[in-house]
Amino acid sequence: MEKKIAVILGDGIGPEVTQQSIKVLDAVAKHYNHKFHYSFGLMGADAIDKTGNPLPDETIELCLNSDAVLFGAIGHPKYDNDPSAKVRPEQGLLKLRKSLQLFANIRPVNTFPTLQHLSPLKAKNLEGVDCVIYRELTGGIYFGAKNLSDDGTTASDECSYSAAEIERIAHLAFKAAQKRRKKLTLVDKANVLETSRLWRKVVQAMASQYPDVTVDFLFVDNAAMQLIVNPKQFDVILTENMFGDILSDEASVITGSLGLLPSASVGNGGALFEPIHGSYPQAAGKDIANPLGSILSAAMLLDHFGLHTEAAKVRSAVQWTLDNSFVTKDIDPVNFYFTSTIGELISDLV
Amino acid sequence: MEKKIAVILGDGIGPEVTQQSIKVLDAVAKHYNHKFHYSFGLMGADAIDKTGNPLPDETIELCLNSDAVLFGAIGHPKYDNDPSAKVRPEQGLLKLRKSLQLFANIRPVNTFPTLQHLSPLKAKNLEGVDCVIYRELTGGIYFGAKNLSDDGTTASDECSYSAAEIERIAHLAFKAAQKRRKKLTLVDKANVLETSRLWRKVVQAMASQYPDVTVDFLFVDNAAMQLIVNPKQFDVILTENMFGDILSDEASVITGSLGLLPSASVGNGGALFEPIHGSYPQAAGKDIANPLGSILSAAMLLDHFGLHTEAAKVRSAVQWTLDNSFVTKDIDPVNFYFTSTIGELISDLV
Ligand SMILES: CC(C)[C@H](C(=O)O)[C@@H](O)C(=O)O
Ligand SMILES: CC(C)[C@H](C(=O)O)[C@@H](O)C(=O)O
Repeated sequence: MEKKIAVILGDGIGPEVTQQSIKVLDAVAKHYNHKFHYSFGLMGADAIDKTGNPLPDETIELCLNSDAVLFGAIGHPKYDNDPSAKVRPEQGLLKLRKSLQLFANIRPVNTFPTLQHLSPLKAKNLEGVDCVIYRELTGGIYFGAKNLSDDGTTASDECSYSAAEIERIAHLAFKAAQKRRKKLTLVDKANVLETSRLWRKVVQAMASQYPDVTVDFLFVDNAAMQLIVNPKQFDVILTENMFGDILSDEASVITGSLGLLPSASVGNGGALFEPIHGSYPQAAGKDIANPLGSILSAAMLLDHFGLHTEAAKVRSAVQWTLDNSFVTKDIDPVNFYFTSTIGELISDLV
Repeated sequence: MEKKIAVILGDGIGPEVTQQSIKVLDAVAKHYNHKFHYSFGLMGADAIDKTGNPLPDETIELCLNSDAVLFGAIGHPKYDNDPSAKVRPEQGLLKLRKSLQLFANIRPVNTFPTLQHLSPLKAKNLEGVDCVIYRELTGGIYFGAKNLSDDGTTASDECSYSAAEIERIAHLAFKAAQKRRKKLTLVDKANVLETSRLWRKVVQAMASQYPDVTVDFLFVDNAAMQLIVNPKQFDVILTENMFGDILSDEASVITGSLGLLPSASVGNGGALFEPIHGSYPQAAGKDIANPLGSILSAAMLLDHFGLHTEAAKVRSAVQWTLDNSFVTKDIDPVNFYFTSTIGELISDLV
């Protein structure tokens, strides 16, 4: 198989973790006789520093002309505390999601048995946790009209959704549920928001097309509690953009394996793969970041190409490193290996 | 002291827990020579069932003419799964907040040492947790323009904030921080939302008026993680309405004492006190609900009246019941006492 992969290293620890994924993909290509062609594009704080633009047109072009995008991380604190900054790294990522129509962000949340001691939750609350969050990614309050009054004293953001936007991601979530434990939970705030009531109506109406899937509904405040108190009740969680941002990050820490969690953003053709974790500028350049979130994202990329054997091989190599205590500093602050060492080890194993 | 208290029993377990608070307030009145006059008003599903209106005008009148409102709980599942219902219980509570201008919801989050085994978190993550959440309660997406297109296929909700709305609650939060550990954390999504950037700008500008308070800023997705991973870092958390709804519920379960947590909603004069927990229809009428959230809300009400000795007395009575294992079924499913028994016990102790 021959594929074009656009690579965006991004900010902070983005470059060093993504480089490990490239090593692993190269090893997969060699071993299984594929050709992966990488082209590199700029985005985020890195792109602002180099071009003044968080997402140069060339990067969009590059991604549109590739079969998939592999992305590191975005964001730098120097932009966060200046509310009047006109250009922000995150604008790049939001524009890329929109340009590639990546309307569904998919985040599997599962536990790694050897790492359970790192979880903030008690073992009994963690047992059996295995869910996946489908977060709408190109609509809602993220992309609605924004306004700041001329005198700067009133601001607004609009949240809007159409039935079509809800349906396309809901179909993906229903199908995922059919292949899993056949339960779909829509998280919304239908007791307050008009958009949430539309979500509920659309999803209720679609349920009859998926008779084997049990659908239930949960208010977002209750979902934020249930994710901690009883996370194993969830199979597929479907939710809108802003709620998904909050809940998927919340879900990612309960297992204690934040550094290991991958994500895929998919839509009409395009697909982007990135670890859940942020850009952690404090760790950047130190070769200590955990590359497994990125490497497992590369495994999702292989699945996306239909290379399931290869993806499984990467996952079992990752599992082997965990089982044999080849881990980065976030997992074991005393006996740890460097980012690059773990990358090489996994490349050797696939 | 002579005070008028409006009582709204509300839905589900609301009535039975609130009745325990009244017992306790009566005992306080007797013991310390105060007069509390109660008047009862309808709100929520109960009000819809009886009057067709989730908040009859008489209830608003009653509350406006009282010194404080003691409230039980709101909501019934029969309204939740009908997205086209025109009348919903929650509308009553939202309208009451607006009518009384209760712009700040205050939720203390602390641990009860004898109950730590109930927390989903490991003991080391819980140690030293003691924070309070200031949630804006009469603005944001809850109260912005809502729209559903005529054909029912597009919906929108507007989130808007003015600097004045932000300032009035921020002053309360800064003052609370001054009396506590002197740290204020603003939670927002300033990397995406215009309203969040206004929050950040306004709070940054106010910081110089409170030089003894350290201010920091956290994105809401990160806050959802930090509350679980390292909750003790927080002192006062300040945030907008929707984020506050999610985070305060999330925070309430980490300690394992959801049934014990009180809240106060305050504003220009008016004040409403209610437990954090919901209406739990499954438990309604069974005399098994935990009345401590309501009773500790009554303690906050006493503080609001300036009756600090009395409030402290109620809190130590509550503590005594916990220390001596006089607890409801949620705390000990085997050796438990009834709601009404706990209420009487605490009344006897004050
Ligand atoms: C960086 C930021 C704009 C982004 C988001 O809020 O979507 C991030 O938090 C994420 O979840 O991918
Ligand atoms: C009942 C509901 C409208 C309410 C809210 O969302 O504000 C509740 O969840 C709360 O937090 O008091």
